[in-house]
Amino acid sequence: MAQPEHESRFPIVGDGRPLANSQVFHAEELQLATRNRGMPLEGLRYSITPHGMHYLLIHFDIPEVDMETWRLSIGGLVSSPTSLSMAQIKELPSRTQLVTMECAGNGRALLSPRAISQPWLLEAIGTAEWTGTPLRYLLEKVGLSENVTEVLFTGLDQGYQGDELQYYQRSLAIKEVLASDILLAYEMNGEPLQPQHGFPLRLVVPGWYGFTNVKWLGRIEAIEKPFQGYQQVKTYQYTQSAEDPGQPVTHIRVRALMIPPGIPDFVTRTRVVKSGVVILRGRAWAGGLDISRVEVSVDGGVNWQEAPLGDRLSPFSWREWSFAWNALPGKYSLRVRGTDSQGSRQPVNQEWNYQGMGNTMAQRVAVIVE
Amino acid sequence: MAQPEHESRFPIVGDGRPLANSQVFHAEELQLATRNRGMPLEGLRYSITPHGMHYLLIHFDIPEVDMETWRLSIGGLVSSPTSLSMAQIKELPSRTQLVTMECAGNGRALLSPRAISQPWLLEAIGTAEWTGTPLRYLLEKVGLSENVTEVLFTGLDQGYQGDELQYYQRSLAIKEVLASDILLAYEMNGEPLQPQHGFPLRLVVPGWYGFTNVKWLGRIEAIEKPFQGYQQVKTYQYTQSAEDPGQPVTHIRVRALMIPPGIPDFVTRTRVVKSGVVILRGRAWAGGLDISRVEVSVDGGVNWQEAPLGDRLSPFSWREWSFAWNALPGKYSLRVRGTDSQGSRQPVNQEWNYQGMGNTMAQRVAVIVE
Repeated sequence: MAQPEHESRFPIVGDGRPLANSQVFHAEELQLATRNRGMPLEGLRYSITPHGMHYLLIHFDIPEVDMETWRLSIGGLVSSPTSLSMAQIKELPSRTQLVTMECAGNGRALLSPRAISQPWLLEAIGTAEWTGTPLRYLLEKVGLSENVTEVLFTGLDQGYQGDELQYYQRSLAIKEVLASDILLAYEMNGEPLQPQHGFPLRLVVPGWYGFTNVKWLGRIEAIEKPFQGYQQVKTYQYTQSAEDPGQPVTHIRVRALMIPPGIPDFVTRTRVVKSGVVILRGRAWAGGLDISRVEVSVDGGVNWQEAPLGDRLSPFSWREWSFAWNALPGKYSLRVRGTDSQGSRQPVNQEWNYQGMGNTMAQRVAVIVE
Repeated sequence: MAQPEHESRFPIVGDGRPLANSQVFHAEELQLATRNRGMPLEGLRYSITPHGMHYLLIHFDIPEVDMETWRLSIGGLVSSPTSLSMAQIKELPSRTQLVTMECAGNGRALLSPRAISQPWLLEAIGTAEWTGTPLRYLLEKVGLSENVTEVLFTGLDQGYQGDELQYYQRSLAIKEVLASDILLAYEMNGEPLQPQHGFPLRLVVPGWYGFTNVKWLGRIEAIEKPFQGYQQVKTYQYTQSAEDPGQPVTHIRVRALMIPPGIPDFVTRTRVVKSGVVILRGRAWAGGLDISRVEVSVDGGVNWQEAPLGDRLSPFSWREWSFAWNALPGKYSLRVRGTDSQGSRQPVNQEWNYQGMGNTMAQRVAVIVE
């Protein structure tokens, strides 16, 4: 790795040398990266992500919501369409749920080639305690018609994507809605939602990737025909080309991440670790599934060793792991991969898709032991 | 601006065409951008930046602080060296100050060519109410020796930069320390500091760029000789080359920013606005100076019109401005520039420096009116 032409121990990729496409980022990608927010990976040390450290992906703009006029409207194929103020919603039964959330595009910027979109490396994660009204309770109250097949959720955030003017909208099949513990959340970690997290109300769909968790919720509609909006059919698909309709992205795939050990070089983020026993730590999650195994490699992914697991904090949150590494001086590429309770395991090499969704290729951390 | 070969109204720069150096970003820059956090510019609508929306620049890692053992040590050339627990610090007199903070590297990624570092566009800003102990009070208590020329502040965050192993350290001249309202802050917006904002204690130096506001403070030392550490002399300098020692970066330069009007295209962030009267709004600040004027251009910076100013909320916070624009259909490059109370005005064109510090070139916002 050392470049004889560089004096630095931490050479910058491409500094004076031509860059491969995968090492070059567009101005549009940077523009998205500076406004959206990842969780620095040392944040994996907290079982509940501290306020302000949880990842954030804001499609359009954070809308300005006037609480004097804001109402959640519930309509479509229901017996009693209604609209509720926040005070009315807070009078309904509430529940608190610990949920690990992840953006479906996490890992996108590690793909080569890759779609021009939010260029996440691995930081699009966070775990929070969400408090709100169970969606099922509210739907029972308004009475769903028998012919309802989906429930459509509309946010107040508006913009263009793929040249289509739209509010952010996603639907869920009625069987998903009735089978799961979806919340209309108004609190995060015991405090009112911040504007950037969906104030005053957002959907929290435990186990699903972030795009399903519609923020700034304004309208819920029971519908008969499958919703065909942009965010439902044009994006959030596992596809192989622009033309391929693909398979919908749904639940969070298994992933393990480690807290980068030692101390960093500011620019390259290469880690320097003192030789000796190094306790590697991190967390692993798999949507609503459990983690059956976490493995660590200290040789770039050739040999793997199993890491002991900690307890699961909730059915939808991450699980801690740790691993004692007998670190001898040298250069290393540390890696970690998880396996879920159904036997799915993170790939060691890239499994490419066109939109850069669900890329769970095992993390790499460059470390110098001295 | 429309590219006939593209069907999109929002063409991506470089999509299929060669990119200029200024439009290409390195993997190291992206890596920094995904862990550091900007304030989305619609956040300018809040006079106090909501929790979790304030910008963040973390040099090394967020350190893990054990409050059982943490103490602030105060030593060097003082009569009574001491160390204080957080409980002891909270018993001292406290003050709350509204402060607009900005990273000295804000605007760096708009320079061409540019240093490889945190690639801020314009989002490295935020305004918070900081509460803590006045530094002067504490220094009077410990008794400064007569030969003290500087006070050195050491953070608990450790890493490499420019191949030097270091804790984050900055000093301030004694005359600055005694003349200004520096706080040892333990609360932000009425809540304990979050880990990423410097928990348990940070320096807040109103009017100075962010780098002076040392986070995770562990040690304060009164010293006789000017501190020559990396963060003091190697970086945070206005220089013209790698060899130029340069002039130190100090106070926040005047800057005005606007809330991007209308609604965005997701990828390019181009704005679409309905024709008619559009109220442009934003904020302007200049460290400890007042704002004397804000001007708006709707033609890319050729003609400028003055914008009315709102009140100043504190001697160190931003000031609101607004401007009624009679928007007719077409494509526009909106710009805004501020002038401070000493007559310094933001440049319309790039005023380059090697490290990419204090680039206050007037903001551009691409808008389609229809």
